[in-house]
Amino acid sequence: MLRFECDYTEGCIPEILEAIQRENHTQLPGYSEDPISVRAKEKVRALCGDRNVDVHFLVGGTQANTTIIAAALRPHQGVLAAQQGHIACHETGAIEAAGHKVLSLPSETGRLTAGQIRAFCAAHWADATHEHQVQPAMVYLSHPAENGTLYTLEELEDIHRACREWNLLLFVDGARLGYGLASPVNDVTIADLTRLTDVFYIGGTKVGALFGEAVVIGNSALKRDFRYLIKQRGGMLAKGWLLGLQFDVLLEQDRYVTIARKAVEQALRIRQAFEAQGCRFMVESWTNQQFPILPNAVLKRFDKRYAYSVWEPVDQDHTAVRFCTSWATTDEQVEQLIYDIPRLMGNE
Amino acid sequence: MLRFECDYTEGCIPEILEAIQRENHTQLPGYSEDPISVRAKEKVRALCGDRNVDVHFLVGGTQANTTIIAAALRPHQGVLAAQQGHIACHETGAIEAAGHKVLSLPSETGRLTAGQIRAFCAAHWADATHEHQVQPAMVYLSHPAENGTLYTLEELEDIHRACREWNLLLFVDGARLGYGLASPVNDVTIADLTRLTDVFYIGGTKVGALFGEAVVIGNSALKRDFRYLIKQRGGMLAKGWLLGLQFDVLLEQDRYVTIARKAVEQALRIRQAFEAQGCRFMVESWTNQQFPILPNAVLKRFDKRYAYSVWEPVDQDHTAVRFCTSWATTDEQVEQLIYDIPRLMGNE
Amino acid sequence: MLRFECDYTEGCIPEILEAIQRENHTQLPGYSEDPISVRAKEKVRALCGDRNVDVHFLVGGTQANTTIIAAALRPHQGVLAAQQGHIACHETGAIEAAGHKVLSLPSETGRLTAGQIRAFCAAHWADATHEHQVQPAMVYLSHPAENGTLYTLEELEDIHRACREWNLLLFVDGARLGYGLASPVNDVTIADLTRLTDVFYIGGTKVGALFGEAVVIGNSALKRDFRYLIKQRGGMLAKGWLLGLQFDVLLEQDRYVTIARKAVEQALRIRQAFEAQGCRFMVESWTNQQFPILPNAVLKRFDKRYAYSVWEPVDQDHTAVRFCTSWATTDEQVEQLIYDIPRLMGNE
Amino acid sequence: MLRFECDYTEGCIPEILEAIQRENHTQLPGYSEDPISVRAKEKVRALCGDRNVDVHFLVGGTQANTTIIAAALRPHQGVLAAQQGHIACHETGAIEAAGHKVLSLPSETGRLTAGQIRAFCAAHWADATHEHQVQPAMVYLSHPAENGTLYTLEELEDIHRACREWNLLLFVDGARLGYGLASPVNDVTIADLTRLTDVFYIGGTKVGALFGEAVVIGNSALKRDFRYLIKQRGGMLAKGWLLGLQFDVLLEQDRYVTIARKAVEQALRIRQAFEAQGCRFMVESWTNQQFPILPNAVLKRFDKRYAYSVWEPVDQDHTAVRFCTSWATTDEQVEQLIYDIPRLMGNE
Repeated sequence: MLRFECDYTEGCIPEILEAIQRENHTQLPGYSEDPISVRAKEKVRALCGDRNVDVHFLVGGTQANTTIIAAALRPHQGVLAAQQGHIACHETGAIEAAGHKVLSLPSETGRLTAGQIRAFCAAHWADATHEHQVQPAMVYLSHPAENGTLYTLEELEDIHRACREWNLLLFVDGARLGYGLASPVNDVTIADLTRLTDVFYIGGTKVGALFGEAVVIGNSALKRDFRYLIKQRGGMLAKGWLLGLQFDVLLEQDRYVTIARKAVEQALRIRQAFEAQGCRFMVESWTNQQFPILPNAVLKRFDKRYAYSVWEPVDQDHTAVRFCTSWATTDEQVEQLIYDIPRLMGNE
Repeated sequence: MLRFECDYTEGCIPEILEAIQRENHTQLPGYSEDPISVRAKEKVRALCGDRNVDVHFLVGGTQANTTIIAAALRPHQGVLAAQQGHIACHETGAIEAAGHKVLSLPSETGRLTAGQIRAFCAAHWADATHEHQVQPAMVYLSHPAENGTLYTLEELEDIHRACREWNLLLFVDGARLGYGLASPVNDVTIADLTRLTDVFYIGGTKVGALFGEAVVIGNSALKRDFRYLIKQRGGMLAKGWLLGLQFDVLLEQDRYVTIARKAVEQALRIRQAFEAQGCRFMVESWTNQQFPILPNAVLKRFDKRYAYSVWEPVDQDHTAVRFCTSWATTDEQVEQLIYDIPRLMGNE
Repeated sequence: MLRFECDYTEGCIPEILEAIQRENHTQLPGYSEDPISVRAKEKVRALCGDRNVDVHFLVGGTQANTTIIAAALRPHQGVLAAQQGHIACHETGAIEAAGHKVLSLPSETGRLTAGQIRAFCAAHWADATHEHQVQPAMVYLSHPAENGTLYTLEELEDIHRACREWNLLLFVDGARLGYGLASPVNDVTIADLTRLTDVFYIGGTKVGALFGEAVVIGNSALKRDFRYLIKQRGGMLAKGWLLGLQFDVLLEQDRYVTIARKAVEQALRIRQAFEAQGCRFMVESWTNQQFPILPNAVLKRFDKRYAYSVWEPVDQDHTAVRFCTSWATTDEQVEQLIYDIPRLMGNE
Repeated sequence: MLRFECDYTEGCIPEILEAIQRENHTQLPGYSEDPISVRAKEKVRALCGDRNVDVHFLVGGTQANTTIIAAALRPHQGVLAAQQGHIACHETGAIEAAGHKVLSLPSETGRLTAGQIRAFCAAHWADATHEHQVQPAMVYLSHPAENGTLYTLEELEDIHRACREWNLLLFVDGARLGYGLASPVNDVTIADLTRLTDVFYIGGTKVGALFGEAVVIGNSALKRDFRYLIKQRGGMLAKGWLLGLQFDVLLEQDRYVTIARKAVEQALRIRQAFEAQGCRFMVESWTNQQFPILPNAVLKRFDKRYAYSVWEPVDQDHTAVRFCTSWATTDEQVEQLIYDIPRLMGNE
């Protein structure tokens, strides 16, 4: 069985394991107050081009999302997200369990627009009894989005302006940020995210690390007491150096983008192979996730050799599915798949 | 200014004030453990046709909704509601602040269908990673719905069956129940609600009381420790006899439905007056709320003499608005409005 | 049975019922946006001697406490209270249900001291891992305290300074404030509370109203969006004018203190009657609550004619109990009790 | 600097790193649904002597505590703990943030007694207005306790009976369970914990793993939907096999207790070295944590070469401190300390 169902089926890049091995018996203070974490934070700040941002390393995405949102909002405030956003539908109501409504906006593209944000806020504040409704106070988006598509810099700039106009915090979930940065169509840098958002994170779990997300906070009010929130939300790793060390290795030179770039190239080759069979796609993705729409009969043939994710039914006979590559995908795996696609699609 | 904007612009029926006056200096134990409340609960049980239900009196609707849902659900569970449902959009995220997601379903009618409920649950449980999503565990609906329309008994029976099939609690918000019971097209009784739901309430605030909702719990698991929840949620009125007394008076004979019936008849006369001018309506309502769609230019003329609620824009030139009657609406007020409608609509 | 168990066994002063009667059929906008509430807020501001405070009327004490604390604190912050404080032990964990720890401090007097507050904060901030603990961010106290005793102005001034030193909000629960203001030993005014606290409330439920607490917010950050919090916490009364009207009547001239003064005088007469029998007291109270320590055998005799509250066992044979007067207590009731005390205590 | 301040200053036992290395490029399904985790769970069940328990692997202690308590309690229920309990004072109010009060009981020994539990529950249920208080519904204790002391089997049996009598769940935090099992005075086995508790966990973070706690649930009601809770609380590790693998290695043969035994023996040698200098201890501990009471002047000398934890001031001149060993402590480190103790204490 070859696994293309997600981008976290393997462990980590070998350099990380080597580094853990090297530090395994070093005595280090706990809770991310060790010198390795300090060094890794410096690397993140350098990438951001801003020495004043606060950096925190958390274990995973749901934890990061919940901790950030709980730290940022007052009880009556909610967070705007596309209805396909991870916090809106794949975190078992973690945000609601922290007391906040996710204000889901419909989206055909899987991404939010500045126009939607402005319209929602205008309607809220125009309502004479707006205090009977959740107050929009933050925008959450993912780059890349859940469906692998990307915001342009212009779109992000516009969303940033909308947020400033309506007094909203802007939070970008970068669980797959590497695959965005490495995409041939991307024009957004980490420095742009630093400049345009109040908080964002650089994903490690899906891009080369065993686990870990590097949260970058630019907004001063949000910086305050953030470590209390991490501890309260169960995110204060005793051996916090494990997180720092992984980012220290990942962000060495341009390793983070390099390993992601290879995955994106592999994904685009897979896309071409499907396209060559006349296959349609749910969305045009230039990152490591591809969403071909396949006949259900064909999927049964894939099932014997390949793991992929079922995304959504398209009609009675067709389903949109996801094939993912990652930093760990080998050329052999991709070639096997490319070889099999025409055969399994029954065109040969 | 004549006020038709909602059904809570006046105090209460005179009999309630008389009763308060009568008991004002009686020494009574606090927290609804007085004999008047005991008697009122007996009246509710009699109406339900079930001596085993638990009855609790709460001050208002948001309080009742939050207390009931907090008492019923585990943290990972959510409540299905129409997107227009009160808990979905008019309670400032009270349910989310209690930790639970409102799983909003789109609805053109403002009501849920058994089919929607079944489809949602089927999709949830069919998903291989359903534990990454909020678990549907309760259905919330209002009778009458927010837009004044009613469920038929057959629809409620079907929703009840869907709930049993998918292990969902059924909760009916009856903030305007009186106006439902009094409607000429209604075929649902309080005994039906008792039989078909796990919990529901009989609204007092909008139907003759100063304030108060009578919560009826049939489900044994939900009965347990409910008074702790009332206290925790700030709903344990020190002078609880004020609540019991109001329901004791309201449920005397068939006063509750009688006062509501008059309001519904008045509302239907208002509807006729609009219809006579060729006016369209947002929805066909047979209860005390009417939603004519009026030209914005006409509304400006109404604004000088009438208070109504803006419901939603229909197109650039038209708006759906709400005219409400209540137990307190006088015949003079209705006649004045009926007299003015053709004049303000510019047809005379 | 004569009831002295609490100060909320009767309804309200007659003037309130008259006013409700008078306004019962006036059409008024909902949610405390009516002219009566506006007028009542002006009266509160005048009493405070500060035209910039925000005033909100809520139904009850637990609701007020929870709403204020939820509005004020971030998730990792807690509220300091005496272990006997109402929020610490008599609200079913309402504050915890809103996500915040009540940081209970032991107290022999039932009151907090500035020294305790300073010591707690100093210890918190001196701890190298203080982010592993709840951050003290607010001080909650009641005036009068749960045991009927009073803070002196000097004590409050010192607590105020401690709060400023350690960046704590100061919140005073005034559920029984009237009985404090009316006490012969009190030297704290409403203007003092306005000046020294960030938020406090003037209790109506226990001092002449059917229900209602007038929340006064001086702190600007806390003023912001407070109505959203009221709605979310279920405290937005549809017929909000009922709250405004009650305070409008209560604060007419010096009625609020006048009715409380009588109750305090009655309580002090009851105290004298117990003292005359050589009775000890749990605490020296100069307000409407008295806590004699009585032999259990004597209490059995009281049980036949009097309702009182059991406070706490003192030793195997003695119990501290509470006898309360209120604005509604009649001279006849007090005289009957005073007549019975020596007889029931077995000394005659 | 030699570090004895805690038991998580190093990484993990070499066998774990080897196993990660071995599996690093294996494609495995996410979220602990991999075959390695399945195998590790079987090992846990075998240790428990009960094939029906549910086993879940979580990353850390605060996460485990919060998830378990959130899963177990209804909103009005609280958890009894010693005032020194980890959830009571070292988790930034994580339990309160999940909505539940920690009902702290004073304890001189740092452990709870069955008598305390019975007395608390008896008082709660005897109170006529018990619904105004948090309902005790769970007992939380640690074995070993925070101060390194142990419950005897007899004590645990009695606490178990008290819990059954008062309808309380029993939850044992075993973050340092290995050091308890390895203690020469311990008579409690994992099978005993399985039999006597509703839920407990076997700590990995402090006993040989990089991170990880193995939660064992015996109670059927608590088993239900537990994975939803893990996800909601941010504890669903994408590469869950990392957790399973660590327990698979740790529980190989009797490795878990073997590595802990060495740490306990080292700790007892350190204790002897302090005792030989006439040193008193805060508590008599037979596990890997030792709490000597040292003159502050002496501590200044230790500061130059040793990291330890400050526990609590004892008097003006003395402080109780903690020296910890762990599975990673080397004989050379212990010998150096033992050599230095008499010199630094100034007796030589």
